[in-house]
Amino acid sequence: MTFDAMWSDLEPVGRDPGTGGYRRFAWTSTDATLREWFTAEARRRSMDVVTDRAGNLWAWAGDPDADGPGLVLGSHLDSVPDGGAYDGPLGVVSAFAALDALGEQGSRPSRPVGVVCFADEEGARFGVACAGSRLLTGTLDADRARALVDAGGTSMAEAMAAAGHDPGDVGPDPEALRRVGTFVELHVEQGRALSSPVGVADAIWPHGRWRLDLRGRADHAGTTRLADRDDPMLRLATAVQETRAAAGRHGALGTIGKVHVEPGAVNAVPSSVTAWLDARGPEPERVRAVVADVERATRATAEPESWTPATAFDAVLRDRLAHLLTAPVLSTGAGHDAGVLATAGVPAAMLFVRNPTGVSHSPQEHAEPDDCRAGVAALVRVLEALA
Amino acid sequence: MTFDAMWSDLEPVGRDPGTGGYRRFAWTSTDATLREWFTAEARRRSMDVVTDRAGNLWAWAGDPDADGPGLVLGSHLDSVPDGGAYDGPLGVVSAFAALDALGEQGSRPSRPVGVVCFADEEGARFGVACAGSRLLTGTLDADRARALVDAGGTSMAEAMAAAGHDPGDVGPDPEALRRVGTFVELHVEQGRALSSPVGVADAIWPHGRWRLDLRGRADHAGTTRLADRDDPMLRLATAVQETRAAAGRHGALGTIGKVHVEPGAVNAVPSSVTAWLDARGPEPERVRAVVADVERATRATAEPESWTPATAFDAVLRDRLAHLLTAPVLSTGAGHDAGVLATAGVPAAMLFVRNPTGVSHSPQEHAEPDDCRAGVAALVRVLEALA
Repeated sequence: MTFDAMWSDLEPVGRDPGTGGYRRFAWTSTDATLREWFTAEARRRSMDVVTDRAGNLWAWAGDPDADGPGLVLGSHLDSVPDGGAYDGPLGVVSAFAALDALGEQGSRPSRPVGVVCFADEEGARFGVACAGSRLLTGTLDADRARALVDAGGTSMAEAMAAAGHDPGDVGPDPEALRRVGTFVELHVEQGRALSSPVGVADAIWPHGRWRLDLRGRADHAGTTRLADRDDPMLRLATAVQETRAAAGRHGALGTIGKVHVEPGAVNAVPSSVTAWLDARGPEPERVRAVVADVERATRATAEPESWTPATAFDAVLRDRLAHLLTAPVLSTGAGHDAGVLATAGVPAAMLFVRNPTGVSHSPQEHAEPDDCRAGVAALVRVLEALA
Repeated sequence: MTFDAMWSDLEPVGRDPGTGGYRRFAWTSTDATLREWFTAEARRRSMDVVTDRAGNLWAWAGDPDADGPGLVLGSHLDSVPDGGAYDGPLGVVSAFAALDALGEQGSRPSRPVGVVCFADEEGARFGVACAGSRLLTGTLDADRARALVDAGGTSMAEAMAAAGHDPGDVGPDPEALRRVGTFVELHVEQGRALSSPVGVADAIWPHGRWRLDLRGRADHAGTTRLADRDDPMLRLATAVQETRAAAGRHGALGTIGKVHVEPGAVNAVPSSVTAWLDARGPEPERVRAVVADVERATRATAEPESWTPATAFDAVLRDRLAHLLTAPVLSTGAGHDAGVLATAGVPAAMLFVRNPTGVSHSPQEHAEPDDCRAGVAALVRVLEALA
């Protein structure tokens, strides 16, 4: 299977015919189709497929238990709601394509080589990003994960069980982790920071999510005088504007992308508005300053829902890859499974493939075919150098 | 059944145990329970119950076909999401209680008397307010109504069929309308305009709903520079603030109470935000000025979803009731089935029962027991004078 053939196979899976965007959420039937695709591609290459306790899929060529930890490539296959085709799948497809190219050159790796498909990277269904790698490394508590519920009230435990993964077995998996000597995740760049086809990640910015509960008082929209209202929608407007202004002042990023209005009727002044604040920056102080400014402007407490400190990838590996590929080194504000593994002490690195528009998490996400080929070629060189 | 006993029977139906608010939506099982309650109360009083083609329930004492059009009291039993106990049910329960009080006095009406329970007054499920009375009078097209869909994708036709009402039969029902000689709807006041226990409606303000489609471009919240973003949430903030400011400038009311964000992910700059604008005022020019100002500020076109011109109730009836009850006359910004009937040429009037806080469409909606008793007493006088 060539890169293009694999890409075509994945193209229709979970695609919304209206928007052209993807809805590939963890532990759904769409997710099952993606996992079956991964397993079939692995088997086609005579690789052994192992599911770890967290539900991540590992395809192995060679035996990492007998012959020592291996080099692992890969990424994830799930998406945000209405996401693009590249975020995640590009890393998995490129990994298989690089192994094929290596085989066609007649080279054989001298150590075990794996391809991983991490489960639930986007956290689109249950609200916790990198759930698969965090469960694997133990930074997401298994009981907490099992109890997470989606918008329809289904818990992660129920969703896993329905998909055939035993939720009772979920938890850290040091054995699976021990097999990973080095992890290199290739990913589409999600901004416009890259002018060459491929770059190497320096660090992941510290980032977090906060919930703002903006309370007011429900009233009839047709009868309550403006002066008698306590309308939380006005506080939402303040939160949105202050998020942008504070992020600009502090040299950080701030976004309100999810909002819930109660009761959400056209003819009712809302009783409350819940807004989620995503904030990131090169240093944690800048991120905290954005959150504090939004709290001050809205007179609300920002409840932390997640916090990821800055992640520095392995410096030796980073410099070696940058030299090997003559590629620029760049930071990013996006979280990735490679960052979770790096934090857990696994030597990990990331390669970014250029994004011409910087658009990501959108049906318009795109990478040029030439740049995708450059990504595969970079992984071939990584395999030659490290395996 | 006393007023209090009827009130207690209705109290638990469709109540959300978390908020204490009501979720009584058209053609649901909760709605069926409310309709069964209405039918049982009518039968208990030996009244005949007729369902018209639009699904409204009419309980009749006497024969309006044989003995000429009757006096009808009543209101509706459905609610907005998380609504209060009084908006609607107060008018129905007070109507039955007034008939009981009249009987206990030994008075017998000299003309047929009816109590009506209008279907789907709030439009909470399918988005069109006063759907039952508008279908009855022909101001809502039957095909349009049948095709309306709720948030779960169920059409009104499917919902009616599931509830046992033939959607194919839905349409104007001049025969049912001809039976109504006079309609008097008692309703809880929804603002703080009333200082005496009971008031009489003068007019309903012109009011409408508009949809604002605020488009932007989806992007990754962690990687897209602020300067590269086209974030529609900022345009929502402008829309919310300008709605309030313009309503104040033009002496009108303006509310944004419902918002939909696409894709609605914490870590994605939204691709679009849809906001619904509810605007009302003493004259249509003021309402149009609010909508125009919001369009100008957001550079968006406000798509009209509904428009109800000013409704003047029957002036002779209004003055007669105000004199009979020594009650003040007041305007309102809220739409009601009585307004729909008045527009269709039925002599119609409304009585308002004082609302101490002005809060409505909220679990906190309240009327004092003494004021509710004054409302029943007012209906007794209306029955004595008009029937």
